[in-house]
Amino acid sequence: MAVHTLRSSAIRDLLAVTERPDVISLAGGLPAAELLPHEAIAAAADVELRDPGALQYSTTQGYAPLREWIAAESAATDDDEVIITHGSQQALDLVARTLVRPGETVVLADPAYVGAIQAFTAAGADLVGVPSDGDGLRTEVLAELLRTGCRPSLVYVVPDFDNPSGSTLRAERRIQLAELADRYGFWMVADEAYRSVRWAGDAGAPIPGAIRLGSFSKVLSPGLRVGWATGPADVISSLVLLKQAADLHTSTLAQRIVWRVVTSPSFMPDHLDRLRREYQVRAQALTSCLELELGHALCTDAPGGGMFLWARLAAGLDGRTLLGAALDAGVAFVPGDAFAVGDDAHADRIRLSFATVAPDQAHEAACRLARAVAVCASRRPV
Amino acid sequence: MAVHTLRSSAIRDLLAVTERPDVISLAGGLPAAELLPHEAIAAAADVELRDPGALQYSTTQGYAPLREWIAAESAATDDDEVIITHGSQQALDLVARTLVRPGETVVLADPAYVGAIQAFTAAGADLVGVPSDGDGLRTEVLAELLRTGCRPSLVYVVPDFDNPSGSTLRAERRIQLAELADRYGFWMVADEAYRSVRWAGDAGAPIPGAIRLGSFSKVLSPGLRVGWATGPADVISSLVLLKQAADLHTSTLAQRIVWRVVTSPSFMPDHLDRLRREYQVRAQALTSCLELELGHALCTDAPGGGMFLWARLAAGLDGRTLLGAALDAGVAFVPGDAFAVGDDAHADRIRLSFATVAPDQAHEAACRLARAVAVCASRRPV
Repeated sequence: MAVHTLRSSAIRDLLAVTERPDVISLAGGLPAAELLPHEAIAAAADVELRDPGALQYSTTQGYAPLREWIAAESAATDDDEVIITHGSQQALDLVARTLVRPGETVVLADPAYVGAIQAFTAAGADLVGVPSDGDGLRTEVLAELLRTGCRPSLVYVVPDFDNPSGSTLRAERRIQLAELADRYGFWMVADEAYRSVRWAGDAGAPIPGAIRLGSFSKVLSPGLRVGWATGPADVISSLVLLKQAADLHTSTLAQRIVWRVVTSPSFMPDHLDRLRREYQVRAQALTSCLELELGHALCTDAPGGGMFLWARLAAGLDGRTLLGAALDAGVAFVPGDAFAVGDDAHADRIRLSFATVAPDQAHEAACRLARAVAVCASRRPV
Repeated sequence: MAVHTLRSSAIRDLLAVTERPDVISLAGGLPAAELLPHEAIAAAADVELRDPGALQYSTTQGYAPLREWIAAESAATDDDEVIITHGSQQALDLVARTLVRPGETVVLADPAYVGAIQAFTAAGADLVGVPSDGDGLRTEVLAELLRTGCRPSLVYVVPDFDNPSGSTLRAERRIQLAELADRYGFWMVADEAYRSVRWAGDAGAPIPGAIRLGSFSKVLSPGLRVGWATGPADVISSLVLLKQAADLHTSTLAQRIVWRVVTSPSFMPDHLDRLRREYQVRAQALTSCLELELGHALCTDAPGGGMFLWARLAAGLDGRTLLGAALDAGVAFVPGDAFAVGDDAHADRIRLSFATVAPDQAHEAACRLARAVAVCASRRPV
């Protein structure tokens, strides 16, 4: 009678602490609640709930009109190449369970999204990190790893505004990754959760041949739990069979609310414009305030999208130690080592979310962080 | 690059056929849409959607006020012993993945709920069926199996108004099962999805020491996808960690709607009374019409709850052959062998759902089934 237990997410444990009202949290991975389209969602719910079908069981693959919308948006040729899931996290879990057997190797860009580490670990995969830089996964390091015998079943990347690194996979690297997949025979999974939260630069072309995961969590509502995967029809049909066993189907009401909102005439372009403008302002405000108050101790770039800064600490500082002082000073972030694929990496990094920090809070957050840095510096052995 | 595919559910495949409007379906496992509390749910959604929190991420273990309600209802001593899931199907999947390793044995009462067969198969379990009768799992057969060396990790039962057999596990057998679990060291999982849909007899005491799965799908709405598991706190905390990887958390909005409906003063007793009365009428109507039109060919009892009749066919008839003729005659059911844990069992049984058949349709359904039986009889070799 054994219980088989996974490691907890350090981030979710940390979130409990950072819910103290006196703490400014840069630790969350939450979108700003005040930027979610509450009125549009309430209006959609009101209409959908007039139809008894909104409360009934529905098909495992997902609500057909919403699959058609996703197919059109993501250039899947038809809706058989789409499955709707309880958030992109469930798509990731189903993909891991369907495409990876226990003991097989999965490569992740390192640092990595903690939910991906958890899903592939739960599937029994052997995880291998390949370093990323400002242009995403270093494909030349992956190529060398493959040349020397590593044989992954699957390579996982967040190609647009990565969580946590904020980086976007450069166009040539997308092609190189697809060529390596073709040569060595592995699946590519592109988690595009942040793809539509972009205010600078062009959207990169999707990685050719990748299974793509998407989400309504960052732009409409995380609480509804609606995401998706697109890919070859035979892979999608295997995901559908596993989803039958996993939870029968995604919430009918949630899918229908999402469908009604995204197909509401002219709603989405305006909503996305507003969301992107506001996140751009917040990213800029936090970056500037950090530069002003902490330029000596912390280095980061203003991103072109997403929700995160992946800041480098000056020599002598590490994220775990700084976090203790930061919580005392009333500000929270996630230390970089929480995102390490292996152990003991990224100690000199911290992840800062700008999404939930209003511009007028950014300066106070930076000042508190500066106080925490000062405390750490004063404690350092001479 | 292998895709690892599960077997499809014969029932879900069948449902596609039975959605033809000219077919009276006794095949579904759906509650009656017209008996779901649409107005109460719409009113609850309207109130909850005024709070931005309804659209935001929430905790993996589930909405605390709803956990408290479930803890009180199910006599879990506190809300740490409850996890809220996307339907009881997800609870089953999380339990299978947490408590069973690939190659370990799981015992199921045979015939079994197809979703349980799928979830334990997906977890890599080796399934062993133990026959059930009108009083549920035959514990004396299980005892003999254990005595001769079978060592399951887990035994799964639907103790109240089983799907498909309709049987309720007799009180002495509940005690015997718990004693066997204690002696041989296996988990017991009691899937109580139909427990509150009871109009005759007393509610049996829960199986002592079992992990209990519950659902709002039969009484409020299957489309919301809200269910739960209760059990020892260490098991629940392992399920919570796996749920982080599986889909982060259950839909915030759906949980809050359910909570508002179930805690609405005096609503639930009246709603449950109405639902039970109507299902009792439907069960009685279908049972009587089957007796009237098919008494020679089919034998079934009027149940005291749940949604299903598990009818025995007269000698010479089998469910698969009858289904072909039945669909031609405009009526559908699920052949018994779809619920077999092994192969080739229950060929002389069919599962008939009375939940979605209005009393004035019951006679027509029975007449169509009688025509199908007549067609099969005329084809039988002399």
